[in-house]
Amino acid sequence: MRFNHETLGQRVRFASGQARESLAAELDLLGSARAMLIAGTEERELAERVTAGLPVVVHHDEVVMHVPTDVARRAREVATEHQVDVIVSVGGGSTTGLAKAVALTSGIPIVAVPTTYAGSEATNVWGMTESAKKTTGVDDRVLPRTVIYDASLMLSLPQHLSIASGLNALAHCVDSMWAPRADPINAALAVEGIRALNLGLPAILDDPSGLDGREQALYGAYLAAVAFASAGSGLHHKICHVLGGMFDLPHAQTHAVVLPHVLAFNVPAAPEAAERIASAFGSATAVAGLATLRDRIDAPTALRDYGMPEDGIEQAARAVVEAAPKDNPTDVTVENITTLLQAAWEGAEPR
Amino acid sequence: MRFNHETLGQRVRFASGQARESLAAELDLLGSARAMLIAGTEERELAERVTAGLPVVVHHDEVVMHVPTDVARRAREVATEHQVDVIVSVGGGSTTGLAKAVALTSGIPIVAVPTTYAGSEATNVWGMTESAKKTTGVDDRVLPRTVIYDASLMLSLPQHLSIASGLNALAHCVDSMWAPRADPINAALAVEGIRALNLGLPAILDDPSGLDGREQALYGAYLAAVAFASAGSGLHHKICHVLGGMFDLPHAQTHAVVLPHVLAFNVPAAPEAAERIASAFGSATAVAGLATLRDRIDAPTALRDYGMPEDGIEQAARAVVEAAPKDNPTDVTVENITTLLQAAWEGAEPR
Repeated sequence: MRFNHETLGQRVRFASGQARESLAAELDLLGSARAMLIAGTEERELAERVTAGLPVVVHHDEVVMHVPTDVARRAREVATEHQVDVIVSVGGGSTTGLAKAVALTSGIPIVAVPTTYAGSEATNVWGMTESAKKTTGVDDRVLPRTVIYDASLMLSLPQHLSIASGLNALAHCVDSMWAPRADPINAALAVEGIRALNLGLPAILDDPSGLDGREQALYGAYLAAVAFASAGSGLHHKICHVLGGMFDLPHAQTHAVVLPHVLAFNVPAAPEAAERIASAFGSATAVAGLATLRDRIDAPTALRDYGMPEDGIEQAARAVVEAAPKDNPTDVTVENITTLLQAAWEGAEPR
Repeated sequence: MRFNHETLGQRVRFASGQARESLAAELDLLGSARAMLIAGTEERELAERVTAGLPVVVHHDEVVMHVPTDVARRAREVATEHQVDVIVSVGGGSTTGLAKAVALTSGIPIVAVPTTYAGSEATNVWGMTESAKKTTGVDDRVLPRTVIYDASLMLSLPQHLSIASGLNALAHCVDSMWAPRADPINAALAVEGIRALNLGLPAILDDPSGLDGREQALYGAYLAAVAFASAGSGLHHKICHVLGGMFDLPHAQTHAVVLPHVLAFNVPAAPEAAERIASAFGSATAVAGLATLRDRIDAPTALRDYGMPEDGIEQAARAVVEAAPKDNPTDVTVENITTLLQAAWEGAEPR
């Protein structure tokens, strides 16, 4: 046993239907008197409900995907101009991302109120884009001081997006078991995340207006983000990154299709991870556990359905071998990755 | 699902036989140039080995159990006088405790190098005594910035103390499942702690000079401290506190005897906790899992062996009912606590 693990200090307030009360208690505890609300126009009504009666001095609604640097600059100017002492973000990954961009240069604390399962609220990773080029970095100032989780805010997220986003979180958990900075603490959190997502995702489908499934999925997505931020990108994320960049495939579906193939690829060489993943699924094997979940939620199965050309497999396999973590449990070769990608392309059984 | 959880930000460097290298890397990362070493006279040789070649400007060795306030005052004066920028503590709970007393008033960061399974290094709780009266508090300034775990430092701890200390950590884990601030995150960490301690403690007995068991026990004790600090004291700790105060019983043995009785008392009313504890033990039931472990490590079984008088049971039961957390899974009455204490006193089978 040998590892370095950085636990990020953060408060989580988890209470369904209580976002406003949780936020009020938090601003009170922080002694915040001048809040900048960041929420896009689509979240306006929700955000106004969540902040009703609270000391918001400015509502900033210019939220753009991937946080362009000029959008970040304007948000920073607004924060300075209004002398805000806390940033309250209400929204998904782009909204949290903009709040992080402001915190990065100002050090103003963030209280994040997520409305998706993206998980950015639980990491110290920031990202910005300029002329289509993305820059990312790690800085503790961008880690939200507190996260307010309210599963009722997820009710407006369409079911298919909930499932896709939840499978993305599941991929974070599974990949954390063998990523470059994998350690026992990450693994314990990831296993708990798998357990929660395996309960939550089918429940979201079974009970479209219920909170129980969303609570489990939200809790699981939080753990996934914590584990993934600490463990780094494993083979699964490297493959998805290569495929996404090469063929412009949709993010969530790519993750959903690729995950079972990476799991089947790695478990023979990672018996302890395999056993723990199986136990989290409550299944005899890790592969069977994931397959059962995927069947229940009708997960996507083939990359060809999303526009990947079959003659791109070879080129992708070579790029994956270049990008793969050196200490992946199963040795990576152009041959075995070609086989993996072929199976993921046609929707064959993971082997 | 409804909870508030405070995750404490802290770095853990875990590498057996590498305490010096880990500490050197950490001081480098922190940019520390003037370290105050706190280590008692018994740890002198160990502490000098761990800090060899590092920028220690003063070695303070006045370490006293329960941190008397005058001892704390002298340590603070030494820190000021030598203008130290980091405190390196090498030792058990009292040593970490003294470092915390200095950090409490100065804000100087602590790098803790534990030599026991006490767990104080993973909490933001401090304690000091004056005229035999103990004051405790919670302050983030006393949380060590970084913990250096090196299982080889545990080799000098006698086996029976390792087991007693490990059982104390196990009690932290189990009690975290139903303590006042129990939440799913604490539970996940506690369950992982049980798993590690259940592996580690028998291995310490089986292989007295081996590191594997001590690594698992150390990792488990760390998780126990994290979970317990967050969840607070449950019924088990309230009982042990009452017994310790009333009859001056030895701390570790009291915990070891009482734990199986509290577990048997609570599991009928806490089925989810019971199932997770059982699974962490790899056993059919939680009670059977703990019994198997206790048999393997020959744990103490009866309070009468440690000087508790039988006619004290009734008085103790009334005090426990007063002190018990209001939301303990099983309702607490003078009758059922008397039965529990009678069984723990005579060493009967937990029911």
